Amino acid sequence: MTPHAPAIAGYTYGGPEVARSPLSDADFALLQRTVLFGDEDRAALRMAAEVVGPQVEDVLDVWYGFVGSSPHLVHYFAGRDGAPDAAYLGAVRRRFGQWIRDTLAADYDRRWLDYQYEVGLRHTRHKKNQTDGVAAAADVIHLRYLIAFIVPLTVTMRPFLAKGGHGPDQVERMQQAWFKAVTLTAVLWSQPYLQPQDF
Amino acid sequence: MTPHAPAIAGYTYGGPEVARSPLSDADFALLQRTVLFGDEDRAALRMAAEVVGPQVEDVLDVWYGFVGSSPHLVHYFAGRDGAPDAAYLGAVRRRFGQWIRDTLAADYDRRWLDYQYEVGLRHTRHKKNQTDGVAAAADVIHLRYLIAFIVPLTVTMRPFLAKGGHGPDQVERMQQAWFKAVTLTAVLWSQPYLQPQDF
Repeated sequence: MTPHAPAIAGYTYGGPEVARSPLSDADFALLQRTVLFGDEDRAALRMAAEVVGPQVEDVLDVWYGFVGSSPHLVHYFAGRDGAPDAAYLGAVRRRFGQWIRDTLAADYDRRWLDYQYEVGLRHTRHKKNQTDGVAAAADVIHLRYLIAFIVPLTVTMRPFLAKGGHGPDQVERMQQAWFKAVTLTAVLWSQPYLQPQDF
Repeated sequence: MTPHAPAIAGYTYGGPEVARSPLSDADFALLQRTVLFGDEDRAALRMAAEVVGPQVEDVLDVWYGFVGSSPHLVHYFAGRDGAPDAAYLGAVRRRFGQWIRDTLAADYDRRWLDYQYEVGLRHTRHKKNQTDGVAAAADVIHLRYLIAFIVPLTVTMRPFLAKGGHGPDQVERMQQAWFKAVTLTAVLWSQPYLQPQDF
């Protein structure tokens, strides 16, 4: 558990029940190189953690506003009657907020890597709906939206990063690091959708 | 064929042999909405086409420099002896340059969509190596690198966009539109890797 983690239902980061990522340390390092992710980005994310930390609920308001106003996205949270499951949306929102904090604070080590695989699984038909014990009609988040979300999760962060009183260069550095971290996450969440030899 | 297309081996955009994308028009429209892609982005890409058009070979030099200096990426172009296949690299490079022009000029219509599915297929074990009749040892481009490439393809474009004499706001608008178009492309190229019900 990270120091900031309150008790969040279904949040099992670092726990013994978390799935193990099949990605080797060497391939994980190469993947980080491919998204140009390095020590400067880790430092920029640490800076961003201080700026964004107090604004996490505001960030979530923007993201949930987008999902809530998009029937094709809110669909994944709907029961068989077509109505969005507010408890399900709320439970995911709490973990999503913690994901922001964890992504900004991460050491990008094996524990972090394993948890991304676990979260990826929870989007697939292997584990969707299980964590929250819900009966949503959709049994998978289609991967196309998971990858597409790189854009809204990236571009909506800039105004929040800009509120910390840093100069434009530092805001840009934090923004770029966030973009890389979000893309890296989307890559890792896609792994359980694929045959091992295709990932 | 687009007006700018010279004769490029294996480049079949708009041709009768191109695969058909299984994505419906309605789902394609929703996907564009999810990456926040709209008319302003199309206009910004048209502007970018004028700026980047004369610099395509320079952009490719940067991208191929990155691939060439990364053994884990040049690997996909290597024969069974481990040596990179220069003819294969060159053939892909010519189509990659055309992809830049097409992405900047696209109407994002069915013809464009179908060709993205075709190009996606050429990265999978269904069609890799066939277009160029090569015997590369790798029979698939691992999807993790295809998604990860959103970052280098996006961030390396900015200096080229900045060379057209436009103000910072317009450069930023072109950069954002390019980011969205690259992400949209990565999503579509991932489709043939997946079971239809998971995409």
